[in-house]
Amino acid sequence: MLTFEQKLRNYSEIALNIGLGLKPGQRLLISCPVEAAPLARMVTEAAYRLETRLVEVLWEDDAVLLSRFQHSRHNNFDEVPHWHSRIHLEHAQRGDPILSIRASNPQLLQGQDPEKVRACNLAFSQSRARYLQEVYNNTFAWSILGVPTQGWAAAVFPDVSASQQQDRLWDAIFAATRADQENALQLWQDHIQNLQQQANLLNARKYTALHFKSPQTDLTIGLPEGHSWETAQHRTTRGALFFANIPSEEVFTLPHREQVDGRVSSTRPLVHQGQLIRNFTVQFKAGKAVHVQAEEGEAALKHLLSTDEGSAFLGEVALVSASSPIQQSGIFFYSTLFDENAASHLAFGQAYPGSLQGGLDMDRATFAAHGGNNSLIHVDFMVGSSDMDVDGILPDGTHEPVMHHGEFVLQNKA
Amino acid sequence: MLTFEQKLRNYSEIALNIGLGLKPGQRLLISCPVEAAPLARMVTEAAYRLETRLVEVLWEDDAVLLSRFQHSRHNNFDEVPHWHSRIHLEHAQRGDPILSIRASNPQLLQGQDPEKVRACNLAFSQSRARYLQEVYNNTFAWSILGVPTQGWAAAVFPDVSASQQQDRLWDAIFAATRADQENALQLWQDHIQNLQQQANLLNARKYTALHFKSPQTDLTIGLPEGHSWETAQHRTTRGALFFANIPSEEVFTLPHREQVDGRVSSTRPLVHQGQLIRNFTVQFKAGKAVHVQAEEGEAALKHLLSTDEGSAFLGEVALVSASSPIQQSGIFFYSTLFDENAASHLAFGQAYPGSLQGGLDMDRATFAAHGGNNSLIHVDFMVGSSDMDVDGILPDGTHEPVMHHGEFVLQNKA
Repeated sequence: MLTFEQKLRNYSEIALNIGLGLKPGQRLLISCPVEAAPLARMVTEAAYRLETRLVEVLWEDDAVLLSRFQHSRHNNFDEVPHWHSRIHLEHAQRGDPILSIRASNPQLLQGQDPEKVRACNLAFSQSRARYLQEVYNNTFAWSILGVPTQGWAAAVFPDVSASQQQDRLWDAIFAATRADQENALQLWQDHIQNLQQQANLLNARKYTALHFKSPQTDLTIGLPEGHSWETAQHRTTRGALFFANIPSEEVFTLPHREQVDGRVSSTRPLVHQGQLIRNFTVQFKAGKAVHVQAEEGEAALKHLLSTDEGSAFLGEVALVSASSPIQQSGIFFYSTLFDENAASHLAFGQAYPGSLQGGLDMDRATFAAHGGNNSLIHVDFMVGSSDMDVDGILPDGTHEPVMHHGEFVLQNKA
Repeated sequence: MLTFEQKLRNYSEIALNIGLGLKPGQRLLISCPVEAAPLARMVTEAAYRLETRLVEVLWEDDAVLLSRFQHSRHNNFDEVPHWHSRIHLEHAQRGDPILSIRASNPQLLQGQDPEKVRACNLAFSQSRARYLQEVYNNTFAWSILGVPTQGWAAAVFPDVSASQQQDRLWDAIFAATRADQENALQLWQDHIQNLQQQANLLNARKYTALHFKSPQTDLTIGLPEGHSWETAQHRTTRGALFFANIPSEEVFTLPHREQVDGRVSSTRPLVHQGQLIRNFTVQFKAGKAVHVQAEEGEAALKHLLSTDEGSAFLGEVALVSASSPIQQSGIFFYSTLFDENAASHLAFGQAYPGSLQGGLDMDRATFAAHGGNNSLIHVDFMVGSSDMDVDGILPDGTHEPVMHHGEFVLQNKA
């Protein structure tokens, strides 16, 4: 049984070694909430010990953001500072690694004026657009790490006493990321290899489409020619391996943007920039979400999908076993970083060019002509469950089971 | 007796109303240590209530800086991130106000390699040079506010139990800044008026030089033609009043850069970027510090004075009554922001162009030709004491007492 300090050190090392594949002589940028200073400091020290040349920390604070919504008397929510995105962009363009340490407080902007929230989110997305191009193009190594803050922990464990909530969320995060295991780095290497084998199996089949079927869902997702199933492990344009999300249990590829038809229901709530969207159904026609309905947060969802031309189309389809450790934990994290690893999921918005053969060398128009979707946003939502079957459709039109009752059943045919 | 919360609110209001003279519709930048998040959040809320258009907080962390000195295996301490200075510069050039919330941990870099400290300080000064031009030119309103951190409080109150140190430093800061008084804003208005009267008296005399005399000091400081005695209250080039330091008890002007001769001894330690310099004596000849000697930190002082051509010349002479509240408190703050208000002081480096009539419209060469000093640095050091006399030298060569035994004795001659 490791101490908290040892788990935290494991967590730092997973982030730097597995997440970023940090190399001596690099310059590391860390973004981090001010509340999580102890973790950022530990990562900083670990990075210097790994011979990082320079560590810079760009701090953030939800309370400062919330204060604007609560107390500003101006209606200028489309005015946001650009320096945060610019620092990220310049760093990415130099090819240096970026670690995002993130807390997610789902209740942060609840009750605030949705028009202001929307204007602010849009302006922020626009200011990040050029940076996200570098993300999608694998110009540099990046990874995302969760950190408990009081607001987030309270949302995840509302029935636990306030003094215990953050500890409970730390435990859940350590378990989900294997940081509570002695041999965490080795476990991660094994885990990545398992995911890669799954991706290889899927790639060998060259499906033209997937069919998702459950009592609430009946959806066909076309897959473009040349699509490639990937894990969160990517290679930068300079050839270095990194693993984008800590944790990650998925294999994913891109849908054909114009070949998604049918109906899909969410199986977990979606938390988007402090707003909760719950129990929603989306109807797709020729790729586009033409009708959405939600028990909670419908307006926020519709706002999200109207961000730009591509935001109502899909950019990702990801398969996750319904028995994944995060699903088994029974914890809803109110955070896509974790919750997307509990169930198969889709994403509205931008597709990863790396999911298409040659996609990294295409301009946006060419990428779209090959079926890839472009958008300012990329927002995952969970649709998998233990009563869902997924079939693969082969080029000759025959169907074969890929997942049955939420579990992978595809075997090596060789 | 005000509660802590009330004093903190007073402190925020002094910063925004007196310090920055904040106007509705402005965009406020705050720099702040992560440890002081509660104060930055309170100032943020207060600023939005005063109809600020947008509040941005640029967080800093001493621990991240220290980690580099402790753990980096590279010798690249002349490489520093430029974005911190650039954000300040862009903000200043737009004419928007900047509040610097500062903690000062005098022990931060003690024991670190002085060559690395020097390289890092120089690189940081160079990256700030363009921003400091905007500061010296009064392009925008700025003010500086102190905030206790554990490291700083421990240095100031080493004999107090650790759990009490920060509270004690808060008490000392609230007292020094009048934030512990009900009518704090009115007291500040009165205080500024008193300082202004002192400056007016000095300006009416048009001294050609000052003579500082005590058992340890015998120094003549020439004053250039057109010099102007000022308080910390300045007017931006757009015409708005601001008060640069909270607290401030001084009136100051610029010396003639080539007319400083004699010997001066420090009466308080000087803390410069985490290094302590104590009990030092400086010999001046034709303006330049030609010999320095220190009981502690002599190497750091010599490094400082060799920063650039102007760093060994004086840029400020300031008069502070030896009975000032901060001197009376008996507390050594290990922070120039406070300690310079306990005693008359001088500064190595850049002179304020606003201290010379027409100086704000001069380029650097013209300013120098009029006796103004240019440098990357501006570092105050305290020389006043209750056994010091200061004479003013009139254009006809006669001397008259300005301070006697550390107290102002100059009266209105009208």
